[in-house]
Amino acid sequence: MLYGIGASKGIAMAPVLLLKEEELVIPEKSVEDLEGEIQRFKEAIEKSKTQLEKVKDLAEQKMGKDKAEIFAAHLLVLADPELINNVENGIKSEKKNAEFILDKTVKTFVQIFESMDNEYMKERAADIKDVGTRVLKNLMGIEMVNISKLDNEVIIVAHDLAPSDTAQMDKEKVLGFVTDIGGRTSHTAIMARSLEIPAVVGLGDITLKVKNGDYLIIDGDKGHVLINPDEETIEKYRQEKQRYEEYRARLLQLKDLPTKTKDGKQVELAANIGTPKDLAGVIKNGGEGIGLYRTEFLYMDRTSLPTEEEQFEAYKTVLEGMEGKPVVIRTLDIGGDKEIPYLNLPKEMNPFLGYRALRICLDKKEIFKTQLRALLRASVYGNLKIMYPMVSALEEVRQANEVLEEVKRELDNEGIPYSKNFEVGIMIEIPTAALISDILAKEVDFFSIGTNDLIQYSTAVDRMNQTIAHLYSPYHPGVLRMIKMVIDNGHKEGIWVGMCGEAAGELPLIPLFLGMGLDEFSMSATSILPARELISKLTLDQVKEIAEKALSLSTAAEIEQYLKSIVE
Amino acid sequence: MLYGIGASKGIAMAPVLLLKEEELVIPEKSVEDLEGEIQRFKEAIEKSKTQLEKVKDLAEQKMGKDKAEIFAAHLLVLADPELINNVENGIKSEKKNAEFILDKTVKTFVQIFESMDNEYMKERAADIKDVGTRVLKNLMGIEMVNISKLDNEVIIVAHDLAPSDTAQMDKEKVLGFVTDIGGRTSHTAIMARSLEIPAVVGLGDITLKVKNGDYLIIDGDKGHVLINPDEETIEKYRQEKQRYEEYRARLLQLKDLPTKTKDGKQVELAANIGTPKDLAGVIKNGGEGIGLYRTEFLYMDRTSLPTEEEQFEAYKTVLEGMEGKPVVIRTLDIGGDKEIPYLNLPKEMNPFLGYRALRICLDKKEIFKTQLRALLRASVYGNLKIMYPMVSALEEVRQANEVLEEVKRELDNEGIPYSKNFEVGIMIEIPTAALISDILAKEVDFFSIGTNDLIQYSTAVDRMNQTIAHLYSPYHPGVLRMIKMVIDNGHKEGIWVGMCGEAAGELPLIPLFLGMGLDEFSMSATSILPARELISKLTLDQVKEIAEKALSLSTAAEIEQYLKSIVE
Repeated sequence: MLYGIGASKGIAMAPVLLLKEEELVIPEKSVEDLEGEIQRFKEAIEKSKTQLEKVKDLAEQKMGKDKAEIFAAHLLVLADPELINNVENGIKSEKKNAEFILDKTVKTFVQIFESMDNEYMKERAADIKDVGTRVLKNLMGIEMVNISKLDNEVIIVAHDLAPSDTAQMDKEKVLGFVTDIGGRTSHTAIMARSLEIPAVVGLGDITLKVKNGDYLIIDGDKGHVLINPDEETIEKYRQEKQRYEEYRARLLQLKDLPTKTKDGKQVELAANIGTPKDLAGVIKNGGEGIGLYRTEFLYMDRTSLPTEEEQFEAYKTVLEGMEGKPVVIRTLDIGGDKEIPYLNLPKEMNPFLGYRALRICLDKKEIFKTQLRALLRASVYGNLKIMYPMVSALEEVRQANEVLEEVKRELDNEGIPYSKNFEVGIMIEIPTAALISDILAKEVDFFSIGTNDLIQYSTAVDRMNQTIAHLYSPYHPGVLRMIKMVIDNGHKEGIWVGMCGEAAGELPLIPLFLGMGLDEFSMSATSILPARELISKLTLDQVKEIAEKALSLSTAAEIEQYLKSIVE
Repeated sequence: MLYGIGASKGIAMAPVLLLKEEELVIPEKSVEDLEGEIQRFKEAIEKSKTQLEKVKDLAEQKMGKDKAEIFAAHLLVLADPELINNVENGIKSEKKNAEFILDKTVKTFVQIFESMDNEYMKERAADIKDVGTRVLKNLMGIEMVNISKLDNEVIIVAHDLAPSDTAQMDKEKVLGFVTDIGGRTSHTAIMARSLEIPAVVGLGDITLKVKNGDYLIIDGDKGHVLINPDEETIEKYRQEKQRYEEYRARLLQLKDLPTKTKDGKQVELAANIGTPKDLAGVIKNGGEGIGLYRTEFLYMDRTSLPTEEEQFEAYKTVLEGMEGKPVVIRTLDIGGDKEIPYLNLPKEMNPFLGYRALRICLDKKEIFKTQLRALLRASVYGNLKIMYPMVSALEEVRQANEVLEEVKRELDNEGIPYSKNFEVGIMIEIPTAALISDILAKEVDFFSIGTNDLIQYSTAVDRMNQTIAHLYSPYHPGVLRMIKMVIDNGHKEGIWVGMCGEAAGELPLIPLFLGMGLDEFSMSATSILPARELISKLTLDQVKEIAEKALSLSTAAEIEQYLKSIVE
């Protein structure tokens, strides 16, 4: 048995399909027919474009638009005139074959981007490397591994999986996957959870330990991988797999039921989404609303701002799709780790503590107004709630509401209809906002606690920084006290309080937040049914006692241990 | 009258001395005697070294070691073998004169460092440029502007002032300075305040508007500059200058008095220092203790860790110098914006939310132990209080105290004496630490609130980021509530609570913090006497009322306006 990181729940049992990338050997040849060589290069670019567009469509269908955005970035690389001109000029001046020149050019580009001390640029380096390899293979006539059509059920074993691999994967035949590298938040892990395929990552060198046809069992919860187990073990796991599938089936029965504690207290379980395409998953998993629609994907991977019309269409689709259920749409939250190159935002030493989200919107009011106009126009198609992110002070809420009033006046003047009773709320994700939540509650219709940033700022730990990850915890008593403060202050002013950070979907925390009185939990769609099942087993007295006990403990470790003992 | 930024208080009146840097024209000559040329280059390097060492000594004497550290960095550039070898090899291979090769080499180096997306490297680029100019001038026999010996009193007017200019300045004759560029926190402004010379910065193009001998009046508080004013105006300012000097004289009478409110409540006014050399200023300004000794300067601008012995000497000097008055020494607080190249710390996307201070010490225990050993050994020479920075959770305090116990055991075994009753406290500068200050208060002897970081984290605003500076405020009601929470929780457990961020020395905030019950205020030495005077005019009832009123307001702007109206 090998031990890795459980990246996506479930048990899978099947023979190995080992994906091994061979090192490409690039030929160097002198060329006389330069025009012909350039033509060959152009054809390879076109072929790569066609392939990537297909991959992108597949990815959108299977995993939603936000997961497919990486291929839009890849397509932009293929259209980059600097890259293309460099190769064509290289062929002309060096009189060498396209493979050789392309390889050299790509390496130079990658080196330049990698040398920049900037995460965004480093990602661009990875994109260029991926795309370069694709074009090279097309030039050299090397077939891309195709896992979109398989004859038998398999578990894929690879060093790592590229986005284009997972996007094309034949979901009927691929029962699980296992990789040498990666962690719980790596691309492969996220893809696996979104495809609902069991996966174990970070195994080190499993590609060296198995061969095609070996029989594998993987437990995507515990992170275990068994190679060629005996019949007894197979039987044991078969039973466990069955239990897991029965659990999944039980969950599915809860799909259309309301979320209620054993003694009848009702709360709302909503979903976080990135694009209208994610709606299907929300409905499949019984979401009672959208607790967080991240609108920034509308602004990403393009070269200019989305128009009011484009935005209107997206918001309308989501509002109509939810058929009158609440839809919380968050206004633009860019900056931080989400860059929008065409806005030319300043480089910052600490982007997470920088010019982002509402701070940008209150500064660049035209961008904000366009979004608010689109939102208001869409409001007549459903139950819209507008939410401002990154509020740190009362003035910001008032300023944002002034812009909103201005937009309403404009629409009134133009005779454009909009709903007169949509709610306006704010995210509570900055410590000072939590600390003055009694003041803020008087100005808004609801709060949604953004735990990811709230934890990050209140513990002073960048949540992307692995070196200090042990200090980032949703179980920190200081964080939990702040959350309780926000819920209490909201209720004192008679407004509802939700939560849309990752903690909202973390099972051990749910009884605690329920005990604190949280009204709405917004999480990834796949977490909804397990949460509903858990809540149905609890009573109000029980969760209040749990909350009281948890809040009496002094460290994150003690609280985590206690809460995990409850849900086990 | 011109309007700039008041950078250092006081009124100065004197004729202009205009410092204008001429553009250097670098000659390009063929050279035959290559060894002679290299010798000439080496001599210029040696001459520059001698000059810089003199500047460094002067700066240390006048402004303390932390302000002089930049010259240590400059000296390191002069000893950089890569720079020197490059020039020598350049002379040999190109057979050109040293000026030409040096200029080319320096430009290349500067370009490389400037292209790196990293503040530290950009500063290194500025260092290399400065030092390069000095060596070039020495090669070309151009005299450096010398303002260390002046015949008459002047106000210096310059585009900007280099550290070497301010360090050499003849304080008897330079009555003030005025620059085109800079802000309140620019190097020039900081230097002016530390030299207690009135200064106005950020005037745009004053170097084009005045000539040598023009008569100037500057008001370093309001940021006004008057060129050739009439006799009446001169008389008006003369009177104002006199009033200011009388105020300063009145303050000096408070130097050896305790800090007490009108009705006799005593608090402690302590100073923040960077090195033992800063002690003179503390004593001159009547400091009642050291509230924050930043030990990181011991670790900076060198190529390896300071030894236990070096640290022991520094701590002993400060403890002895304060003659039994309390001395709070903060353990190493590096990372964030303070890099230590020889530790090879990882590059981070958000260094302020990263691997720094206690986080590093608990990870690299040997570094921490060496410092604790030096501190304990020095403890017998005065009233030591050890303070851990960047605490976010209870576990960190416990872990740090375990290391401290380990060090005590080691010293016991070695028979080395140390004080048995020094206090151990923590900085409260991370929001979760404030939120669990009731829990933390049970484990330590004191708190010191670090407002700079506390504001930064609780408002999610990088305090170096100009774009969002309007959101960073010590008057934010959320920040003030947190401060009150910390003071109350500390007092409930019977420990004293101080403050060592910049807010502690900000006059309008002092009545508020006094009303909240703060026990100790630690500030820059020059702020102590004005604070003592203010406190002597207030009563306890008055400040309690002020605190209550301020805490009832909803925005930073309202609170700031209210508190400023009190001290006016």
